[in-house]
Amino acid sequence: MSQLTLCECFARDGLQHEPAFIPTATKRALVERFAAIGFPRVEATSYSNPKLVPQFADASELLQSLQRKPDTRYKATCANPKAVQRALADLDAGFGVNEISLLVSATESHTQKNLRRTRAGQWANIEAMVRAADGRFRLVGTVSVAFGCPFEGKVDPGAVAADVEKFVKLGVEHVAIGDTTGMATPGKVKELMKRLTATATPIAHFHDSRGTGLVNYVAALEAGVRYFDASFGGVGGHPAKVKYGGGYTGNVCTEDLVGLFESMGFDTGIDLDQLLATAEFCEQTLGRELHGRVTRSGLNPLQRAGT
Amino acid sequence: MSQLTLCECFARDGLQHEPAFIPTATKRALVERFAAIGFPRVEATSYSNPKLVPQFADASELLQSLQRKPDTRYKATCANPKAVQRALADLDAGFGVNEISLLVSATESHTQKNLRRTRAGQWANIEAMVRAADGRFRLVGTVSVAFGCPFEGKVDPGAVAADVEKFVKLGVEHVAIGDTTGMATPGKVKELMKRLTATATPIAHFHDSRGTGLVNYVAALEAGVRYFDASFGGVGGHPAKVKYGGGYTGNVCTEDLVGLFESMGFDTGIDLDQLLATAEFCEQTLGRELHGRVTRSGLNPLQRAGT
Repeated sequence: MSQLTLCECFARDGLQHEPAFIPTATKRALVERFAAIGFPRVEATSYSNPKLVPQFADASELLQSLQRKPDTRYKATCANPKAVQRALADLDAGFGVNEISLLVSATESHTQKNLRRTRAGQWANIEAMVRAADGRFRLVGTVSVAFGCPFEGKVDPGAVAADVEKFVKLGVEHVAIGDTTGMATPGKVKELMKRLTATATPIAHFHDSRGTGLVNYVAALEAGVRYFDASFGGVGGHPAKVKYGGGYTGNVCTEDLVGLFESMGFDTGIDLDQLLATAEFCEQTLGRELHGRVTRSGLNPLQRAGT
Repeated sequence: MSQLTLCECFARDGLQHEPAFIPTATKRALVERFAAIGFPRVEATSYSNPKLVPQFADASELLQSLQRKPDTRYKATCANPKAVQRALADLDAGFGVNEISLLVSATESHTQKNLRRTRAGQWANIEAMVRAADGRFRLVGTVSVAFGCPFEGKVDPGAVAADVEKFVKLGVEHVAIGDTTGMATPGKVKELMKRLTATATPIAHFHDSRGTGLVNYVAALEAGVRYFDASFGGVGGHPAKVKYGGGYTGNVCTEDLVGLFESMGFDTGIDLDQLLATAEFCEQTLGRELHGRVTRSGLNPLQRAGT
């Protein structure tokens, strides 16, 4: 049994801001491959408004074609109650996902800019979505900008803990904690994550905007976190170049994270013999070299030798 | 006073494998700039054989032109006794460095492939170099492949500690510990570094071949290490593509390291207002985008606010 539960985010968070539409058959091949090599959770698609996020206009079509593994969690992002209705319709049609995510930001201004709603409005939305879901999906909360906000700066850890408590009271035990623009530090990660593990199952969803993704994931691991989000090649994350004028940001590279955790003696359940070929498949899909270092250097030879 | 002592390696370790010769005036501008923005140690050049490493054929010319800061350590790499003689001649001529480095690898095969000598032969060399230096430079030892060898695999930490002890007995207190091909893990870093800090002043010189550079530097920091080597943009490190067929490797990115350590509350002594402009100057020097993340995303805004 795996000690760590990794979620592969390439097919949703990763592709969301890619300008070219990735063909549905390619998305299907990606999601099936991620499940096949052992990811227990895979972000499959998003029920966002196709006019706003055309990349996922094929959400239902993708899910209808998808071959599933019985124990894998396939997640779809749901921004509002209408998205949950679409997820329910697909479920009724026999090809739905078994996990949906519900999103709020820790600060008022980030919620408004990212979701076009007040925090109060989004929490009302989330409550409506939880009622609509009616226990038919595993629900996963997300609290964005949990370690700092590009608009408001410092974020009170107590406010993040209160948001997590709200999710828990709604029956949402798993909550992703987003370091959305890479402002976390190891000390603050340990402090917050230790606090959250007492009452919920926090998922680390940190970004590598400032090169600190793996550092902060190790801090989260040391604080007891066992759920981690990552994307092959570090693709995705906040499209800072476009939206915030701050330059490059991105997800934590799956292949480097798996390499690190395995070399530290943790079992991710991922087939290491298939890891780098899958990273290369992701590079081929986007037609460019991505950020994974082990894709270039190979996995740590010592971890394969069990030393 | 700075709590951490960073050495900027771009001008030597960084440039060593660049195919194009960097003009002496540019090297001078780089080294002077690194000192000006607060690096207490700067790798300036190498007294290697110009036929083997043409990039540093201008070592003496560079040093002759260099404006110095009185408290900065300017380091030159010395591979053999002949190199020390050149360093002494420049010192006699009034423009020498005040620090030289002496290199050995932890394993027999890496020593022979990298230095074309047996370990016994290289240790005899080092003893001759220490005698020749006659106390006129600060000497810095280096033990390469300290956490794993591309040829021999696992490396005994006891053997590395024994090498460090040899350096200390020769009067060399500062010893760089090289994770030459990125095989270190946080646990092994802490174990070895705690052991070494008892008898010497270890310098962390790790490579980011597998994306673990910052993770392992935080582990070293936690183990009491206060000396760190890095290179702007992650330039340099083992030229794995050429020599070992293993793909990309490189140094830890200075700008990301400074950003991380400062955001953790440590004082590096580096002028943060000049850090990113210096990273951009390094990119302009090589005419390509380098690996630093904060160069694209900016420094963590919270660290500037002191929060």
